[in-house]
Amino acid sequence: MARPTLRVIPLGGSGEVGKNMTVLEYGNDAIVIDSGIMFPANDMHGVDYIIPDFSYLTQRPHLKIHGLIITHGHEDHIGAVSHFVEAFPRVPIYATRLTAGLIKVKLSTEHHALIKMINAGEPFTLSVFNVEPFHVCHSIPDCVGFAIDTPHGLIVHTGDYKFDNNPIDGKRPDYARLASYGQRGVRLLMADSTNSDKPGWTPPEITIEPAFDKVFQQAKGRIMVATFASLISRIQITANMAQKYGRKMFITGFTMREYVKLAREINYLDIPESILGDANKVSSYEPHKVVMMVTGSQGEPSAVLSKLAHGRHRQMEVVPGDTIVLSSHPIPGNEEMVYRTINKLIERGANVVYDPLERVHVSGHACQEEMRLMINLTKPEYIMPVHGELRHLVQHGKIAVECGIPQDKVIFAENGMVVEMDKVSVRKSSERVPGGYVFVDGSSVGDIGKAVIRDREILASDGFLIVNVNVNKQTGDVLGRPEIISRGFIYLRDSDDLLETIRGAVLDTLKTNRSANGKRQDVLQESISRTLYSETKRRPMVFAVVNEV
Amino acid sequence: MARPTLRVIPLGGSGEVGKNMTVLEYGNDAIVIDSGIMFPANDMHGVDYIIPDFSYLTQRPHLKIHGLIITHGHEDHIGAVSHFVEAFPRVPIYATRLTAGLIKVKLSTEHHALIKMINAGEPFTLSVFNVEPFHVCHSIPDCVGFAIDTPHGLIVHTGDYKFDNNPIDGKRPDYARLASYGQRGVRLLMADSTNSDKPGWTPPEITIEPAFDKVFQQAKGRIMVATFASLISRIQITANMAQKYGRKMFITGFTMREYVKLAREINYLDIPESILGDANKVSSYEPHKVVMMVTGSQGEPSAVLSKLAHGRHRQMEVVPGDTIVLSSHPIPGNEEMVYRTINKLIERGANVVYDPLERVHVSGHACQEEMRLMINLTKPEYIMPVHGELRHLVQHGKIAVECGIPQDKVIFAENGMVVEMDKVSVRKSSERVPGGYVFVDGSSVGDIGKAVIRDREILASDGFLIVNVNVNKQTGDVLGRPEIISRGFIYLRDSDDLLETIRGAVLDTLKTNRSANGKRQDVLQESISRTLYSETKRRPMVFAVVNEV
Repeated sequence: MARPTLRVIPLGGSGEVGKNMTVLEYGNDAIVIDSGIMFPANDMHGVDYIIPDFSYLTQRPHLKIHGLIITHGHEDHIGAVSHFVEAFPRVPIYATRLTAGLIKVKLSTEHHALIKMINAGEPFTLSVFNVEPFHVCHSIPDCVGFAIDTPHGLIVHTGDYKFDNNPIDGKRPDYARLASYGQRGVRLLMADSTNSDKPGWTPPEITIEPAFDKVFQQAKGRIMVATFASLISRIQITANMAQKYGRKMFITGFTMREYVKLAREINYLDIPESILGDANKVSSYEPHKVVMMVTGSQGEPSAVLSKLAHGRHRQMEVVPGDTIVLSSHPIPGNEEMVYRTINKLIERGANVVYDPLERVHVSGHACQEEMRLMINLTKPEYIMPVHGELRHLVQHGKIAVECGIPQDKVIFAENGMVVEMDKVSVRKSSERVPGGYVFVDGSSVGDIGKAVIRDREILASDGFLIVNVNVNKQTGDVLGRPEIISRGFIYLRDSDDLLETIRGAVLDTLKTNRSANGKRQDVLQESISRTLYSETKRRPMVFAVVNEV
Repeated sequence: MARPTLRVIPLGGSGEVGKNMTVLEYGNDAIVIDSGIMFPANDMHGVDYIIPDFSYLTQRPHLKIHGLIITHGHEDHIGAVSHFVEAFPRVPIYATRLTAGLIKVKLSTEHHALIKMINAGEPFTLSVFNVEPFHVCHSIPDCVGFAIDTPHGLIVHTGDYKFDNNPIDGKRPDYARLASYGQRGVRLLMADSTNSDKPGWTPPEITIEPAFDKVFQQAKGRIMVATFASLISRIQITANMAQKYGRKMFITGFTMREYVKLAREINYLDIPESILGDANKVSSYEPHKVVMMVTGSQGEPSAVLSKLAHGRHRQMEVVPGDTIVLSSHPIPGNEEMVYRTINKLIERGANVVYDPLERVHVSGHACQEEMRLMINLTKPEYIMPVHGELRHLVQHGKIAVECGIPQDKVIFAENGMVVEMDKVSVRKSSERVPGGYVFVDGSSVGDIGKAVIRDREILASDGFLIVNVNVNKQTGDVLGRPEIISRGFIYLRDSDDLLETIRGAVLDTLKTNRSANGKRQDVLQESISRTLYSETKRRPMVFAVVNEV
């Protein structure tokens, strides 16, 4: 009997391919890489966050998922683990120590037993898959990529990576291991494409230290450092500076406090107890003795930084003399919110330090030269660029071709596309599985589909208008005054003329349409819509309710 | 009698200070600089564009506006001229030749007589103001700044500028004139801050030519160049390349065609008739003989590029082999739309060329070294950074202090703040005038206020739900089944349980509340809102209509 085909399916929850989840499948056996969330685009109105679409997996009861293997502890890779566990409550989760700790914070205690600790360099077997995690550098410690031996050859998945030759935690890239995969023969390289449009080499994380040093040297008042809760190395750099310049360090925000506690416990953060202060007592310290870690570097309205910027924080306010460091880059789509936050902080008298003014942030992802290095180390037969929008993948593909990989061995798959691998070749199949978004809004998952978002789009743009009118059941005559409810369309109090025009249109229409109720409502809605458009050139949602009394 | 104070008031329609409009006022005499539009932020739902708030001017009938003086022909400086003319139909408009032509396109013929042609280096007098336009380089020809002699000293307003030593149109910066102002003594410099966070010197416009040359050399199929309609120098560079590589050039879009026609007529564009083709006949040419200019480089959904990307264009479609050049940078807030457009074009097989992949765009604004040069040439006593968000102004201020201007002579004003100038000093007063946004939506100006936008925000996030219920006038008993209309909240068809819960809550509430109608509706709305929140953790707008029958 012929061996089954191996199937590789990126199932991202975002415009980035395979960023949040990837499935590897061989016959009835499968493993899943990562389970992360993404933030909604600006036009995904009201959506809190996005998770990968699990329906391909849930609809295949014969498929045995032997493990969820995790590359690292950032939200876009672990943020949907709790949703995954809900859907697949028996699948073990494989993660390195720090990553495992961060996942535990997200899971209820009963599920902690699902987590299996792994170490870079120590392979483990999940049915037909032999998985070797290998150490990579990124902007959080304990990151791995995976070298996965399959019945059709070796797959190397880089995870998020950069080649940092001078990493904060001292753990250098494992060049030897990558080279050894190259010597054994890599069938398929799946590699991070995030910075494929950026020439050169991403600077080491340590290169932001001088900028931090300058800030600490010059600041006369409090310092606040805003970054992601999971950017552990930034927290380490800040702690080093706090120690050097004799400031007490305060961690604000539940998640960041949990993460710091955990990372210190397992020695991934080296912060002496003596320099940590109780955030509730920060006001009792002199400003020049204080450095605070805050969240909200993406301008998120509910985070500490945004509350401070808009004067909505309960305990604290920003005052002249404060120095605020934004140690992150805006994720595309967040620029406006980030810059608005910066402007508001400046308005309150703060000195705001951000890239490009000072290098207080570097990327955690490889640039073009590092991508070339990765390809030349692993010497793959095929490459499938992942982790990026299509434009990044295509650019990564060009780099691969420059490195000698034939164009027809560069595979561009989008989320939900099935890549097949057998002894003959690796190729994109024509099969597509549900690989799109699942929206999480409020307490519910997935009940907000495209139709609802489209309605929100219309409501956001032009609002709605409802006319409620009573008619005599026998004669069809209008009784009383049509009631009008409208929001988001125009300011009704200043629009008496328009309201009268609408009422006129309603009466006219009902005079000539005494037919059955359903039809009459449709005719009425159309007539009102027409009136509104000709008066205002806008198209609010229009509803007519005709009560027969 | 003491001389009146001179008042300088930035009245922008955007987060950028004084970008779209500035008022200079001395006693009862005033002049206005520029009247432009801005694009709405992502959370200004449904707004088409923003114009400056004219209400400060309209509410001061004693104020005589002697002229609207225009720096250059970009939309953020001339886009609201038609609104200005509507409000002040007798105020003459002073503009250089190309700018005047671009304004004419926007005004009805009867208003063309308002436009007075001016030339760089030729001063004119508007009551107490002696205005000398001086040539500056930017990304459209015929740009000027203004040196304005006032009773309290010389004000130099740079307009948008860069020091381009090798400009496409051959017209170099007028260093001598700027230096002469410095020698005469500049009281106040108002200078462009757009790129104050960028070190160095903005490259000349001509430095994009090699990237264009490479595109034309390598492209095997059609080339499309996307840029702003008013980026005349990009159109010139494209025309030069079309001529060099034997392609026919097609201008698409009404505005760009009008602008090209006008600029050619008055010799600001040098495009021989022979290389221009009729855009309606583009399909009859071989692909490698075609270059098209298209609009939509900011991802605007209604522009040609976005229609092509999403397959919504009536006559044309993008096919493999097409090369598309995005010759512009995303304006902050547009990144997501621009990148989505790029991804969609790539999906259709196009080769998309954009910065940073190739340098096909350079900024039209000065970087830090040019700002230093401007300050050192004009040697102002005071500086008021303009044209930028607060963060840019503050950075520009730091540069000014480095150049020797005392900190207390750096003036940061926001839109609507009044800067006073007399013989003693220039200073920010405590007076604030309406300096905010006026929204233009559909056919109407200004009737969309913050309240409507806030409603749209809520609707965009959680939608609405309306319950319509009939009750017996005498008994208060509910008649029939409550009708529910909802959009943007959840997908109703899949929500039978929730609908039943709502109906149950309605019946319960009305059973215990048989009081007067107004109060009863309020109680009902509150009860429904509570039910929805506890069931879904969302807060749609809720309305209850109780009909007594």
